[in-house]
This record gives sequence, structure tokens and C-alpha cells, in this order.
Amino acid sequence: MRVRILGIGMGPQHVTGEVADALRGCDYAVAVRKRDDDGLFALRQEVCDAYGVPLVAVPDPERDRDDPADYPAAVADWHEARVAAFERVLGERGGTAAFLVWGDPSLYDSTLRIVARIAERGNVDVDHDVLPGISAPQLLAARHRIVLHGVGRPVHVTTARRLPEAVAAGQDNILVMLTGRHGFEGLEDWSLWWGANLGTDSEELVSGRVADVLPEVGAARRRARDKAGWVMDTALLRRSE
Amino acid sequence: MRVRILGIGMGPQHVTGEVADALRGCDYAVAVRKRDDDGLFALRQEVCDAYGVPLVAVPDPERDRDDPADYPAAVADWHEARVAAFERVLGERGGTAAFLVWGDPSLYDSTLRIVARIAERGNVDVDHDVLPGISAPQLLAARHRIVLHGVGRPVHVTTARRLPEAVAAGQDNILVMLTGRHGFEGLEDWSLWWGANLGTDSEELVSGRVADVLPEVGAARRRARDKAGWVMDTALLRRSE
Ligand SMILES: C[S@@+](CC[C@H](N)C(=O)[O-])C[C@H]1O[C@@H](n2cnc3c(N)ncnc32)[C@H](O)[C@@H]1O
Ligand SMILES: C[S@@+](CC[C@H](N)C(=O)[O-])C[C@H]1O[C@@H](n2cnc3c(N)ncnc32)[C@H](O)[C@@H]1O
Repeated sequence: MRVRILGIGMGPQHVTGEVADALRGCDYAVAVRKRDDDGLFALRQEVCDAYGVPLVAVPDPERDRDDPADYPAAVADWHEARVAAFERVLGERGGTAAFLVWGDPSLYDSTLRIVARIAERGNVDVDHDVLPGISAPQLLAARHRIVLHGVGRPVHVTTARRLPEAVAAGQDNILVMLTGRHGFEGLEDWSLWWGANLGTDSEELVSGRVADVLPEVGAARRRARDKAGWVMDTALLRRSE
Repeated sequence: MRVRILGIGMGPQHVTGEVADALRGCDYAVAVRKRDDDGLFALRQEVCDAYGVPLVAVPDPERDRDDPADYPAAVADWHEARVAAFERVLGERGGTAAFLVWGDPSLYDSTLRIVARIAERGNVDVDHDVLPGISAPQLLAARHRIVLHGVGRPVHVTTARRLPEAVAAGQDNILVMLTGRHGFEGLEDWSLWWGANLGTDSEELVSGRVADVLPEVGAARRRARDKAGWVMDTALLRRSE
């Protein structure tokens, strides 16, 4: 069977011509439905409705967050359960399936790993391709009308968890994803361009010197969560000259 | 007047719904026409034709490459001449203009700087916004069906010129843009995912251990240039474990 991994950007407005064509040619789409991201599932539903593709919700397996005794093994089990959940849907339905990826499949997304693992298990014969989509960092940059780096200079893309090690290594222009609890400790003088729920009607934007705007970021983050029921944010941090 | 900076990805297939709508609402589009990138200009023309927008070619000012005596000043003059060239077109035509950006405006693109400078000069009153587009690194990842980083790890985006300093600083997963002459000296054992003229009919892909595939990359690069008349390539380099 055929699997198409399709980046849908931050909503229907970002669907590219080639992804629209791919969707029209699919028998159905699959997407994980987490208990806490009904908003994102609804956006995927909107995309599917626009192209007449039935969307099959794959329930996210329960994750045992309370038992850190063997954390890596628990995560591995959970990943395998998720793979099995997708495999079951594909095995039953066959045909051409679309995986709808929020943003772009190349950044902090597990879809490619899931599909590779399904192929590896060998229970379902899958042949897959990937079409890109607009990512959160690109939309952050567009909204703030900035380039992500100084002229001819690098941008270091990392997770909030690894932000301290990037700063320690001397990185001075850092795009942070998978932000949860913020801190920005020691970065009070850096410049910040921040955005939450980009591309949706709960979008929030803040920019300025970290120490000056941190309270504003907190308030905007709460607003986004209150309005949408979920919040995802990303930020560019640049050391001031 | 209104200026819309629109990312068009690597060709018409990547135009998003919102960029298509924006194009239909513009009076005209502008794009620089370099003497050596007729192929890229033709792709922009194709995008404009698809949405019925006239494309105004802004000739690239002559760059005096033979006089390195005062190089920074020469570059500054050339930038200002380019700004003036765009300013002239906008001043004469007014209305709503689209700047068509190859890929995404947030990565190694000067359009935002040009528009900011036009606003600063104050001869034309411009009000601008930005819509994102698919970038070369995303398409590279899609074609190789990879994620740009290890699970939860960073990706360092930089230029070929700054590759050595990234490696020296300990970066082990590097996306290289603005590649010209390659070398990859000292990276013989790294893994490489490489692509040229991505998204066009002269696209080339190579992947493998650097030392093993370097001759193949050279040949593919020449093929792309022979077929298209131009070549642009990008690569992901990852230290082997
Ligand atoms: C699992 S990653 C997926 C990233 C996605 N594949 C992309 O291309 O942007 C989720 C992280 O992306 C960022 N993100 C995703 N959607 C976002 C949005 N609409 N606004 C702001 N940040 C977003 C946040 O940092 C979030 O923690
Ligand atoms: C001036 S930068 C523009 C980048 C563009 N804004 C983007 O979002 O990808 C040009 C560089 O981008 C990369 N690039 C652009 N188009 C490409 C393509 N079709 N295939 C491979 N690399 C490309 C190359 O590294 C090239 O040197």
C-alpha cells in the first residue's frame, strides 16, 4: 500500500498545491488524536473536509507518566503501541493513506519514525513519500517580519530542554521549539521574538528584550491556552550586540 | 502602498493557499532578474502566469567584482543600487506589489532588508507583510525522507563558508546552505544528504558517507547545471556515531 506523509503547515491556509493534489488522490487520512489536542485534530479535520478525504482518528495510547521507575522502557513501549495503532488502521484499510503532519515533517515530528517502524515490522507492506509543509519557525519569522539569522550567519534550531547547552556552547542566535516551562535564565538581555498558536485564531506574538517582555509572554501564553484549549509556542533568541 | 513578501517555495507546486489568494489580490509582482538565473526568473514567471499577475523584472545592478580594493563599500553601493531599482518600480506603479521570494523569506534572503531599506529612505510609503513558503532544507529532508535532526536534538543551519567554524565548535548535525565550492575536508566519515535544484526538473539527490559519495555529488552537480543552466544545492551533514 501507499503512504503519503503530508506537511499541512499551521492550518488549511498553508496547504500547498502539491499537498492538495495528494490529498485528493488519497483514500483516507490518519491522524493521532491526543486527549489534550482536540483543537489540532479539528484543524486536520478541516483540511480533510476541504479536499473530501475521510479522516481516521488513531487514538493515542495511554502513557504511564506516573511510573518513572523505568522511563526509557516505558517510552519505548508507548512508541511501539502507537506504531501498532497506526499499523492496525493501515492493515485494515489498505489503499493510499495520508499522514497529516502539523507543520513540516522534517522538524520535531515522529511520523517518519512511525512509518519506518511499520515498514520494519513487516506486517503491512508500505511504500512512502513525503511532501513538505510550512513549519512553526517560518511562520514565527513571517509574523515578526524577520529573517531567522544575521546576514550570512547561522541559526541554531533546538529544544527548550537543550537551550542551556546551546548557550553554553556559544550559540548566539537560537530558535527554540518544544517550549514548555520557560526560563530564559541568564538571557535577560537577549532579544526575543516569540509566538504561540501561530496561524490559528488564538495566535499571540510578543517581541523585545527578554527581561522586559517576559511577563507579557506569560500573559499571552495563558490567553492562547484559554482561547484554544491548547498552547504551542516557539521563539527566536538572539544575543544583543 | 502595500507590499506583500510571498514565499513561493521551490516552484508553482509549493504555492500555499494563502499565497495564491495574496497573488490574486496583487496588482503586480516584482522580482530581480540576474544575468545568470534566467531559470529562476522563468519559474517566478510561471507562478505569476498561474494567478494572472503581471511580473515586473527588476534588473540586478552591475556588481564590480574586479575591484576588491574597497570590498565592503562596493557591496554596500551595490545593495543601495538594488534598493533604488526596486524603489523606482514601486514608486512608479504604486498599488499592491508582491515580492516573490524563492523558498522562504526567513532563510538567507535579502528581500526583507530591501523592503526595510525602502521604508527607511522614505521616498515611497510602504506597508508590508510576509507569508511563508517551503524552504530548500525542508524539500531536501522530504526527498530523502528524513527528519533534520536526531530525536530531541538540534540542527545547526549555516552557510558553506561558516561550515568549518561550526564543526570546530562541536556541531555534529549541520544543514549547509549557500554552498559553492565544496570541500567537506575533515568530514570524510560524516553522513551526507545532498540535493541540487530541488523541486525542479533538474533535481539531483545523493546520500551516503562523505568520502564515498563526493565524486557522485560532483557529477550530479554538473548534470544539474548542464540541464538547468544554473545550480543551487544544499546538504545535511551528520557526524557518524
Ligand atoms: C512536535 S513539534 C512539531 C513541529 C512541526 N513539525 C513544525 O514543523 O513546526 C511541536 C512544537 O512546534 C512548535 N509549534 C508547532 N505549532 C506551533 C504553532 N502553531 N505556534 C507556535 N509554535 C508551534 C512548538 O514549539 C511546539 O512545541
Ligand atoms: C539565497 S539562499 C535562498 C534560500 C531560500 N530562501 C530558501 O528558503 O530555501 C540560496 C541557497 O538556498 C539553497 N537552495 C535554494 N534553492 C534550492 C534548490 N532548489 N535546491 C537546492 N538548494 C537550494 C542553496 O543552498 C542556495 O545556495
